[in-house]
This record gives sequence, structure tokens and C-alpha cells, in this order.
Amino acid sequence: MTVLAVDIGGTKFAAAAVAPDGEMLARAEVPLRGPESAGRTLSEVVRRITERVAPGRLDGIGIGSAGPLDPRRGTVSPVNIPAWRDFPLVDALGETLPGRPVRLAGDAQCMALGEWWRGLTGDPAGRSRAMLGMVVSTGVGGGFVLDGVPYVGPTGNAGHIGHITVDPGGDPCPCGGVGCVETVASGPGMVRWAAANGWTGADARALAADARAGHPTAVHAFRRAAGALATAVLTASALFDLDHVVIGGGVAAAGPILFDPLRQAIERNTGLGFLRRLRVDPTSLGRDAGLFGAAALVLLQDSL
Amino acid sequence: MTVLAVDIGGTKFAAAAVAPDGEMLARAEVPLRGPESAGRTLSEVVRRITERVAPGRLDGIGIGSAGPLDPRRGTVSPVNIPAWRDFPLVDALGETLPGRPVRLAGDAQCMALGEWWRGLTGDPAGRSRAMLGMVVSTGVGGGFVLDGVPYVGPTGNAGHIGHITVDPGGDPCPCGGVGCVETVASGPGMVRWAAANGWTGADARALAADARAGHPTAVHAFRRAAGALATAVLTASALFDLDHVVIGGGVAAAGPILFDPLRQAIERNTGLGFLRRLRVDPTSLGRDAGLFGAAALVLLQDSL
Repeated sequence: MTVLAVDIGGTKFAAAAVAPDGEMLARAEVPLRGPESAGRTLSEVVRRITERVAPGRLDGIGIGSAGPLDPRRGTVSPVNIPAWRDFPLVDALGETLPGRPVRLAGDAQCMALGEWWRGLTGDPAGRSRAMLGMVVSTGVGGGFVLDGVPYVGPTGNAGHIGHITVDPGGDPCPCGGVGCVETVASGPGMVRWAAANGWTGADARALAADARAGHPTAVHAFRRAAGALATAVLTASALFDLDHVVIGGGVAAAGPILFDPLRQAIERNTGLGFLRRLRVDPTSLGRDAGLFGAAALVLLQDSL
Repeated sequence: MTVLAVDIGGTKFAAAAVAPDGEMLARAEVPLRGPESAGRTLSEVVRRITERVAPGRLDGIGIGSAGPLDPRRGTVSPVNIPAWRDFPLVDALGETLPGRPVRLAGDAQCMALGEWWRGLTGDPAGRSRAMLGMVVSTGVGGGFVLDGVPYVGPTGNAGHIGHITVDPGGDPCPCGGVGCVETVASGPGMVRWAAANGWTGADARALAADARAGHPTAVHAFRRAAGALATAVLTASALFDLDHVVIGGGVAAAGPILFDPLRQAIERNTGLGFLRRLRVDPTSLGRDAGLFGAAALVLLQDSL
């Protein structure tokens, strides 16, 4: 069984043909040009796979999508794609490959499942029993994998770790909450704080470069984000009894300037004995984690 | 099948004989007199059941215990019972009724399962798909029931909601963390804050009475606790996609002086659409929730 995996992001769509052993037989990525082009972009990215792997060889479709989404109805409403509101993505892709099973989950949920299946813990003997995958980027998202099964919750929305409050005295969040992780640790949140404190760079990438060069405000912005992420990681770990957290996304790609203070903050605040076994790692799969996870929704479905 | 349910608390032990339909055929409670008396108290509370329900009619033993505990090894180390450290509680009770299945979980995990089985959501048609039970008392504990199954995590410690940080600038917690829910919303935490702000009463019960009478510092102490609990409830709900939270314990028994500001704070900060369905209720079973849950560990074990 080979599966078509599709990853619907806010700025690009990716797709791959994935074999049961995890081999990617083909991979494609198409940037989203303008909010009205989502439908064309979807057709294009799928075509790039099917012109290399015959549709007859594809036995199912797994989809990871930016949210909100409704997995029961198979619809998605990605925040950054206004043209898609309750868009029937499962039906749309099902028409491309009629008669095959189609499964849909959130992008961060797929990232977590991909890491569980093919990442650092991919050695079946060493796989996590309770893991969190986080995507720290323009937003902050998360997904849980418990005993190898994605935990998506009754409405499919479990894992909204970007919108837990880590600073009750903090900034209001567009979600309606206050001091959410996303207000502090997302790229835009970090840049907003740095700009308010005199930093004059352009974006999160520039902020990371300045932090690496030792610019005090930039370093502080990463420490502040790391503190918020540490609180979020420890909170999720105390509630789920986690043993592994894997963090990906553009901000996480900044490397040690984020992970060093993050690990220090976790170390400093880990009091509960059962959390001392917790490991926190950057993604080992980069941007492919979500595609592997989308494929796993179908490939591992008998065990899910 | 009738089950012996045992609830190991920090100040008292309770036991009951529970029939499969949830009827309590007998119930007993024995206060713990001095830390060395735990063994005698255990024998006494079990004897009070077996002298009313013949041991031959008891087909299994379910235990809820104050933590920490290790469900895999069947041992408990309740913080308030220093004489029991890695005490083999499962073996000890198993010797009382040889050959019967014995199951052990945390006290708050049992409270949650009891509420799920016999509480407000006890109508099978209306049962929660993802619920949190919280015990707010001398400490703050929690347990999750997901699709009718207690989620205890790989080491049995899931649900430690008393030790998530809700105020990063708050007081250090004996657990090693900072600003944990328990430092703000437990009885001792509330009394400590009120005393530091000029209140001169004796304990949490007196604080509740003063709050009901309109004493400003006492009212503020409950509002502050409610704010911390609201953050914790919303955090757990965003991560688990919860639909129901049930709160019991001595502090929760204070009633509207806690629940009114708690519901207001939740209402004010609920932005995520999927959380609008969340219900938050006081326990409907009082102190029996834990006994019902302990019984359910055995009675529902085929479905768990």
C-alpha cells in the first residue's frame, strides 16, 4: 500500500507518495500565490506526485491541514486561506482518487504522528508512549500521540497548546484569551515584543540572526519565548505524563538560541519525579514530519 | 459481581461494597489517627465492610489512593502518610481477599471515573467524551476520563493539574515549580495568601464563612483561587478538547463563592470555538465519587 500524503499549510502546500516502510517515492511543494489560488495549488501539488507515481499505485490519501478543521465532516477553514471556509477537502481529494480511504487531521497532529513513526523515536523499541509534537512558527500548534495513536479529542481539536495561558498578566490574544503561548513564542509575537523594546529588524529570521550575534534584545526575545514554551511543555507533561516532546517549525529552526534556554528553564522547573525522564528535542524530520504523519493516518490505520 | 472499593486519603480511609448497578451495599469511613496507624486503619475500614457484606460475595478490589503511587508495581507513598513509602497496597489488600483482581489508581483519577460513571453525566446517553475531574482541597489533583477510559499515562501520573504553572511570577511550590495551581487554589494556599493580607482566621473553612459574609480579603482569596482554577481548566480543555469538568473537594464545597467567579473567569477567557460547549460543575456525588471510581476500575474493567 502506497499513500498520497498532503500537507495544507498557510503559505504552501506539500504532497508526497509514501510507501509502507516510510520511503518517500516522490515529493512536491507548491507555494500558495494569493488567497484565491488554493484550489489550483491543490490540483498542482497532487499532479506533481501523480505524474511520477501512477494514481493506480496510490491506495489511500492522508491529509494534514492548518486549522480550524472538522475531521468528522472532512472540512477545513485554514486561518490564512479565507477562500476556504468549511471547505470539503476530504471530498475534493477523494474525487482525485475515487474509492480510496481518505483521512484528515490537524497539521501539528500529523507532525507529531510523523515524528513518532519516523523520527528520533522511530526505532520501534524506543518509541515514546506519550509524546507531544509542537510546531512553533507563525503560530504555535501541537499534537499528542498516546501509545502510538494520535489523540485528537471529541471534536478533533486536542493539542491547542498555542492557546494556553502562560502569562495571566500578558497581552490579549486574538483567540480571546490572555497571555497565550502564541502571543509570546510565535515568530510574530517575538518580533512584536522585540520591536516594542527598541529592536529595529524586519522579521523572526532577522531576530534569530541578531540573537546568534549576541544582540541583547534579540537574545532576550528568545529567552522569553523559551520560558513560555518551557511552561507549556511542563504543563502538557504534567497533565499527559509525557516522556517526549519534539519541536519543529520556523522558530524552532533557530536552534540553540532557543533550545538552550528552553532546556534550562525546563530543568529549573521540573520538580515532579515522573517528569525527570522527559526528553525535549528539535524535529529530526524537518518539514517532512507532517507528510510522514499524514501518510501514517492511512498506513497505520489498523493500529490507530 | 460486587466489588470492595477502598479510598486512601491523607486524613481518612473509606471503603464500600459496590454492586454492578452502582448500589452501595455498605459504606465505612475511619479517620487516620497518627501516621503510624495506617495499617490498622486499613484493616479496620475493610473489616467494617466485610462484617456487613460477606467476603465470599466480593469479587474484586478497586483502590483509589493519594499519591504518589506506582500502579504498575501496586505501591503507594501518600505524602501525608510517611510510614507508607512504596507500600505494597495492592498486595496487602489482595491478601485480605485472595484470588480476586485488584486494581489501583490515583484518588483524583478515581474521582473522575466515579463522576463519569455515576455522576451528573451518569446518564449513558449524555456521558462526557472527554472529562476532567478535579479535587480541590488540601492539595489540588485531577484525573481524565477519555471515551469512558481513565487516562493515567505511561507511569500512572497523568492529571497532575495541581502542579501546572498558572502564575510564572508567583510563589515557589514544594514540587519545585513556581506559581503552581496548588500554591494559589488549595485550602492552605488560600489561607496563606489571606493571612499575608491581614486576614486573621484559622483555616479554609473559616475563610469560606468570611467570604460568604462579604469579608473583602476572604472574597478576594476565593476570586484569586477561582482565577487560577479557570486558567487550569481552560488549559486542560484546550489540550484535551474537554467537554466537561467536575470539581470536588473541601474548597469546592464552598459553593457559589468559588463557582461564580470561576465560571465568570472561564466565560471571559474562552475564545476557542470548540471550548464553548464546555460545562463546569461541582461534584454531584460528594465524597463518594472516589469510591464509585475505585469500584468502576474493576466493574468496568472489560471496557477500560
